[in-house]
Amino acid sequence: MMPSRNQWLSNFSEWFHKVIFEIPIYDTRYPVKGTGIWMPYGFKIRREVLEIIREELIKTGHEEVLFPTLIPEYLLKKEGEHIRNFEGQVFWITYGGTTPLDVRLALRPTSETSIYPMFQLWIKGYSDLPVKIFQIVNVFRYETKATKPMIRVREITTFKEAHTAHATKKEAENQVREGVEIYSRIFEKLGIPFVVSIRPRWDKFPGAEYSVAFDTIMPDGKVLQIGTVHFLGQGFARAFDIKYMNAEGNYEYVWQTCYGISERVIAALLAIHGDDHGLVLPSIVAPIQVVVIPIVYKGREEDIIKVCKEVREALYDEGLRVIIDENREETPGSKYFKWELRGVPIRVEIGPRDLERNTVVLVRRDTLEKITIERKYIVEEVKKLLRTIDSNLRERGKSWLFEHIFRESEIEKAKDTLNSKGGIVEIPWCGKDSCGQEIETKMDGRILGVPYNMEEKPISSCVNCKVAAVNWVRVAKSY
Amino acid sequence: MMPSRNQWLSNFSEWFHKVIFEIPIYDTRYPVKGTGIWMPYGFKIRREVLEIIREELIKTGHEEVLFPTLIPEYLLKKEGEHIRNFEGQVFWITYGGTTPLDVRLALRPTSETSIYPMFQLWIKGYSDLPVKIFQIVNVFRYETKATKPMIRVREITTFKEAHTAHATKKEAENQVREGVEIYSRIFEKLGIPFVVSIRPRWDKFPGAEYSVAFDTIMPDGKVLQIGTVHFLGQGFARAFDIKYMNAEGNYEYVWQTCYGISERVIAALLAIHGDDHGLVLPSIVAPIQVVVIPIVYKGREEDIIKVCKEVREALYDEGLRVIIDENREETPGSKYFKWELRGVPIRVEIGPRDLERNTVVLVRRDTLEKITIERKYIVEEVKKLLRTIDSNLRERGKSWLFEHIFRESEIEKAKDTLNSKGGIVEIPWCGKDSCGQEIETKMDGRILGVPYNMEEKPISSCVNCKVAAVNWVRVAKSY
Repeated sequence: MMPSRNQWLSNFSEWFHKVIFEIPIYDTRYPVKGTGIWMPYGFKIRREVLEIIREELIKTGHEEVLFPTLIPEYLLKKEGEHIRNFEGQVFWITYGGTTPLDVRLALRPTSETSIYPMFQLWIKGYSDLPVKIFQIVNVFRYETKATKPMIRVREITTFKEAHTAHATKKEAENQVREGVEIYSRIFEKLGIPFVVSIRPRWDKFPGAEYSVAFDTIMPDGKVLQIGTVHFLGQGFARAFDIKYMNAEGNYEYVWQTCYGISERVIAALLAIHGDDHGLVLPSIVAPIQVVVIPIVYKGREEDIIKVCKEVREALYDEGLRVIIDENREETPGSKYFKWELRGVPIRVEIGPRDLERNTVVLVRRDTLEKITIERKYIVEEVKKLLRTIDSNLRERGKSWLFEHIFRESEIEKAKDTLNSKGGIVEIPWCGKDSCGQEIETKMDGRILGVPYNMEEKPISSCVNCKVAAVNWVRVAKSY
Repeated sequence: MMPSRNQWLSNFSEWFHKVIFEIPIYDTRYPVKGTGIWMPYGFKIRREVLEIIREELIKTGHEEVLFPTLIPEYLLKKEGEHIRNFEGQVFWITYGGTTPLDVRLALRPTSETSIYPMFQLWIKGYSDLPVKIFQIVNVFRYETKATKPMIRVREITTFKEAHTAHATKKEAENQVREGVEIYSRIFEKLGIPFVVSIRPRWDKFPGAEYSVAFDTIMPDGKVLQIGTVHFLGQGFARAFDIKYMNAEGNYEYVWQTCYGISERVIAALLAIHGDDHGLVLPSIVAPIQVVVIPIVYKGREEDIIKVCKEVREALYDEGLRVIIDENREETPGSKYFKWELRGVPIRVEIGPRDLERNTVVLVRRDTLEKITIERKYIVEEVKKLLRTIDSNLRERGKSWLFEHIFRESEIEKAKDTLNSKGGIVEIPWCGKDSCGQEIETKMDGRILGVPYNMEEKPISSCVNCKVAAVNWVRVAKSY
């Protein structure tokens, strides 16, 4: 019998708060609104996720750096569109001890304006290009909307931001494509399903020419933005005077891109795979991949524990993250509950009957199916089963997503679908900003943008103005 | 011929700035005083150092967490002695966007006052104890003294702080000892020589009962504090009302400790092992452990590169961090200069003669000695040589330290020694605060404290008041 997903589906917000509090993953009781504490188990998941992100970036030639947190006001204000968007959201430091500061310092809301003044110093000739760096830092935004743990916070503790500079527009545009590929691989590894859209002009990153965004659909049908890739053109280069000398000896502005991922990807990871028993973690990020539980009966305690330890040892030697839950004060049932809540991919149960028959029971967290195997095959079977679980989670995630993408060609129907089914509704659009914004109002939704890299065009007319549509456009309720 | 250490010794400050700028390790040109940027090579060293710290803490049962950066004013002010010390150094956030905040928020200068309110929620019964957690975070101090990269900064980017809570005083005191052992192992691994002292009462951590501190001696003879372990007693527990129910059902305050290490340990690592050619890195933290340099002659390019690649492959397969510097536009001499500056422990040179003789030349970074070996032994020889270099650096560091610890029993002589030789002067002390502070004034130095765990007592009288001394006490010029 498959584990139910009723509570997960019907009251996702409550499910999420309960799971992250009870495990615990993240403690929201810290007395500053919109902040929280990464608890040990949550921290470990976060660390595994960050290692995947790092690996993909380093493999593609990005170098890790670390910039200061504080940005002087005059720098933050150098690029006009950027500051107009962020100025309502910036935390300002005005005092050092009891001394008023001459220059107010912003807690970085994002780091373009701290990094690009240094690009100006670092980049001299074309041989200095491309620059491809990233950092993983905390950034701060004074959110005025209701905050939600990991999803809408005032301190984003886990902000991976990459910044690149290039000699030509073409190279920078290729870099946008590489950014999209990198993020696609990261989400694929985590089994997080996604769509990629080109955000409409009125919703691009402030200072960018255009923004490409990754969205996933959460259990409540609302869309969560989990990553963005921005083509910055030469706007910041002009604001920060970032020039290089080309092969002909002339100075030119660089072309730039930047792309970011935050702890929202962890929120999505926890949310997408969950069920009513709690988390279900892909093995790649599970702090514990296998838990061995002795089913202890009087008189057989020693033998059973001994076999459990052998099994643990065998799995550990293969590099798996495995523990035994030996606690004798707790019933097996209570242990099942605990480790299911924590999303451990495989539980190994070993009881007296298993001793006699030289078997062990494997229980898959994703389906809760029990599989009895010969003990001597434990290593191969566990490894195989982890792969099976990971691929099942990935496929289930994709099905979830595709089942929640709808197409409508009339605005009323589109609105009904969005309200009744959630997810994403694709509708034909003429491409005009004014029509797009009217659609948002009429549908009470957010335009995610036109699909990235989709060749197919709608044959019908724009749902709003009825002139010939040039693109499908995605509309959703969003976080 | 051993590499010279003249500039390193005679003008350490200039040496340090030059090395960290030219490699680059850390860029200090960021326009906020007392901050800097970890550049890719520096970031990699930092990461290796952090992995060593993490490993030692996790091995001893500490769990990693992550707390918010911001502390509401009322929490920061709960422990009186703590805030009296820190209030001149706190950066205050007073605005969110254009809105004045109701409660001012401090950027954490250290995290006792953010962590302990949560201890109050987490700790209920004795079975919740001990709590042993740590986090690696950025902390902020509005330093009014002259700032120095990595050594005295306004944003400490790399602050590892551990915090523990215990049921009994004895357990907490044992934890102080464990903290000292953990830090000793970390510094030993990094080859950083140290002395451990119990700081005098007037120089303990604000809010602690006593503080144990690790100091090293920098090339300029000044002492750098590189780690501290604090016995907090029950002071914070009372301020934050952290109680547990004991086995008899009574509520008691917990006993606490905390201990911290910052990027100063990285500054010490870079400083202690250096010479006039630049850095000399222990292999455990070297981002590149071996650099292979083809000595290319016309007509033999392909053969030499081929052998270099085989050598690289063989070393890489053994898990070593190895690169080939294949750049054909650069002379071997210029490459030597570059990789020596960066402190790569071993350089492998392969030229036409080596091809004929099936040899390679290994050059040790610490001594610059050249060793010709048969190529087929490359893996064993490189591994052995890395161990030799590491142990040489560790021993050289210790010698450096011990050669700079002096004993004097008259205050004028002690002052002369300190002024002429630097380092640490140990003098007999009666143990009275007033005498200690007079000694500091008379010697124009800082009392580091009495040696930790030293049984030996002086037989002479206090250098200041001439009554019988109870301890040696260490005096130094300090950062």
